[in-house]
Amino acid sequence: MAASTHPKNLDPKNFGLLIYPGFEALDAFGPIEVINNLSLTHKDISLSVIAATLDPVSTLHKGMHSVGQSVVPTHSFNDAPALDVLIIPGGWGGFDTAPELRQWVRDTVPQLDTLITVCNGSALAAQTGVLDGRSATTNKMLWKECVAHGPKVNWVAKARWVRDGNIWTSSGVTAGIDVTLAWVANEYGDELSVELANIMEFTRAESSLHDPFSDVYKCEDVPAQVKID
Amino acid sequence: MAASTHPKNLDPKNFGLLIYPGFEALDAFGPIEVINNLSLTHKDISLSVIAATLDPVSTLHKGMHSVGQSVVPTHSFNDAPALDVLIIPGGWGGFDTAPELRQWVRDTVPQLDTLITVCNGSALAAQTGVLDGRSATTNKMLWKECVAHGPKVNWVAKARWVRDGNIWTSSGVTAGIDVTLAWVANEYGDELSVELANIMEFTRAESSLHDPFSDVYKCEDVPAQVKID
Repeated sequence: MAASTHPKNLDPKNFGLLIYPGFEALDAFGPIEVINNLSLTHKDISLSVIAATLDPVSTLHKGMHSVGQSVVPTHSFNDAPALDVLIIPGGWGGFDTAPELRQWVRDTVPQLDTLITVCNGSALAAQTGVLDGRSATTNKMLWKECVAHGPKVNWVAKARWVRDGNIWTSSGVTAGIDVTLAWVANEYGDELSVELANIMEFTRAESSLHDPFSDVYKCEDVPAQVKID
Repeated sequence: MAASTHPKNLDPKNFGLLIYPGFEALDAFGPIEVINNLSLTHKDISLSVIAATLDPVSTLHKGMHSVGQSVVPTHSFNDAPALDVLIIPGGWGGFDTAPELRQWVRDTVPQLDTLITVCNGSALAAQTGVLDGRSATTNKMLWKECVAHGPKVNWVAKARWVRDGNIWTSSGVTAGIDVTLAWVANEYGDELSVELANIMEFTRAESSLHDPFSDVYKCEDVPAQVKID
């Protein structure tokens, strides 16, 4: 994959959404609703929906649900454009991705300006090593299962989202909306973030630390178990 | 279309999501996330994604956005199954739907146990007459444009959602999550609604009357302008 086309002093242009069998619908379409609406005023952005192949990708996973939907990719791993921002949703399938997906993530993330993960999307990213030495958060209902995938990650329990440099990880499902609006506030200013939240009639989390669900599911911080050289 | 297969004393089995060009992604996938997760424990439910044809349907509308996604229908208007529950999302395309879509809505809604609309999905429904004489709410940013489509509807401004009998209408975009969780609470009990909200790490609106966005956009009630005989 080519290096990002986004010079550091310009707004991001090329967004990507990674999907895979068993991705969580709202993990994807929460953040994407923000980016879709961003494109109402920022007409020069594009978003690629990227998967292993161009076949529609279902949210279904191993018979767990009886209800699922299929989304059409625009690009495969072979022809995905260089990206400035990549969004990785979680989902039951995120614990069980194909080696070629994990290799694509491993190759792609170092080229990005920004990585945004939702839910156990951070566990998926952690499996590839791209979160080693970083602070991150993840799904709260499946906290222990998620953090086990990243022994070199500092897992922060009480967080709606965590920013560590250019990597923004969020808590479960609807937290993906908050992390994306927080990233918009950082990148474009708070006024636009408020405007996009109002369009979505969404009340943003008061701060990144406002996370009632770490209490609901009794989650505790898990520092990195392996020292990074 | 055949009558609903849902006897009034049984749980709903057959859900439908209506999509059309220019539907709003999160209007659809907020409620659908609830239904997808409902199917983790209620394995006997199904959800049909229904459109004019089986071709993938894009969220794009007349060049307003530069970013859109495409979803694959499972059924067309010609072969959609009998439904217990229909979800109608809004979106920019919802102001400008094809006559055959409006006829399908007109024919289908009387057969339903429950209609749930999101955002200007209620304006679309109002155009077909199925909301005549009902109380309803709709998108707050586009309040005046929306209510103009339903002169025989009692439009309630300060409402996250409105229930009038078997018709549940919600405010904009993320309010679709709240109305669906409220419907779940009514149909299956509050415990399951809380459980589904926690899975989504979503803080439910305190009540149907909790609606800060009617203030943001200075919306006012619009009683029905035409008397229903």
